[in-house]
Amino acid sequence: MSHTVIKYDRGMGRWEPNARGRLELAAMSLYLEHGFEQTTVAEIAKRAGLSERTFFRHFADKREVLFWGSEALKELLVSSVASAPDSATPIAAIAAALESAGALLQERRERALQRQAVISANAELQERELIKLAALASAMAEALRQRGVNDLAATLAAEAGIVVFKVAFERWINEANQRDFPHLIRESLAELKDVSGG
Amino acid sequence: MSHTVIKYDRGMGRWEPNARGRLELAAMSLYLEHGFEQTTVAEIAKRAGLSERTFFRHFADKREVLFWGSEALKELLVSSVASAPDSATPIAAIAAALESAGALLQERRERALQRQAVISANAELQERELIKLAALASAMAEALRQRGVNDLAATLAAEAGIVVFKVAFERWINEANQRDFPHLIRESLAELKDVSGG
Repeated sequence: MSHTVIKYDRGMGRWEPNARGRLELAAMSLYLEHGFEQTTVAEIAKRAGLSERTFFRHFADKREVLFWGSEALKELLVSSVASAPDSATPIAAIAAALESAGALLQERRERALQRQAVISANAELQERELIKLAALASAMAEALRQRGVNDLAATLAAEAGIVVFKVAFERWINEANQRDFPHLIRESLAELKDVSGG
Repeated sequence: MSHTVIKYDRGMGRWEPNARGRLELAAMSLYLEHGFEQTTVAEIAKRAGLSERTFFRHFADKREVLFWGSEALKELLVSSVASAPDSATPIAAIAAALESAGALLQERRERALQRQAVISANAELQERELIKLAALASAMAEALRQRGVNDLAATLAAEAGIVVFKVAFERWINEANQRDFPHLIRESLAELKDVSGG
């Protein structure tokens, strides 16, 4: 038996099947068509066939449509670092975390491509993305310290990990020969090892 | 015979000895006393004993007082990477560049400490600093590509270099036992090598 997951929309007093997903799709297509700056919440709601009020029950603002996944990504990275075997070196724990995140994004490649196209076209969103990545690095560094890794090694491993993630992400997005994201992460990590040793 | 360097202030039709330096000192002390957000250009000019018009001849806005050195820093990093011996590995070229920058900042430790205190207290300035660091990484990566380094190695070496710079900078700023900045850069690079190999 299969179910369609629906969300009861309290404020409106009626059911809005998958309102969040519809709003996200509508927003992404409008951002791609007209640019992030030029798109209004009213337009997003209209295209999704929903009210602005419903939009604001799901997202704080139009930027959150692009960034709501950051918190889940952070939790995934942190829990992966925390659950690495005791014997794992700091960079091995980071590698495992990045590959988990990479596998998740791999499943959502189309959304990731669209999101990146929107962000690349807007300086403010690029800034927000940099801040997000810095926050992910801090969270992973803290997770390493919790494993007893010293502060310097924890910070460097986590920050270098984010560099690897960023570089691998750009290759994943831009390369014609769509190799999968976890593979590109492993390759970039190996290259970082070579480069750092030089 | 010693000279005081003075700058002829064309627009005002009179001499303003070291207007730029006076404005910078005034701005920094006000940012530290009242916060960056709360300080106005009028207050900075007043404390420096100069006009607002003079301020705007030297700085585009109050943020530029904190960031005008970024361009010079970028040029120093790029020219250091470019002038490394042909035999230098990518990370060795980056290390040489970072140490040059570190030596420059070491000479201006007091200003660096004050600037960092102002930036740490303001989210918008922290964002600007992240963007600056990302631009420095891009510029160094491009300088490596000009040396014939492949894109992946160039990007990773430059981005990892900026991570090292950032980590060493934080230690330099925060540590009680003021070891010099180039030394901390070398130490962080060695740690990155250890960590990446793990």
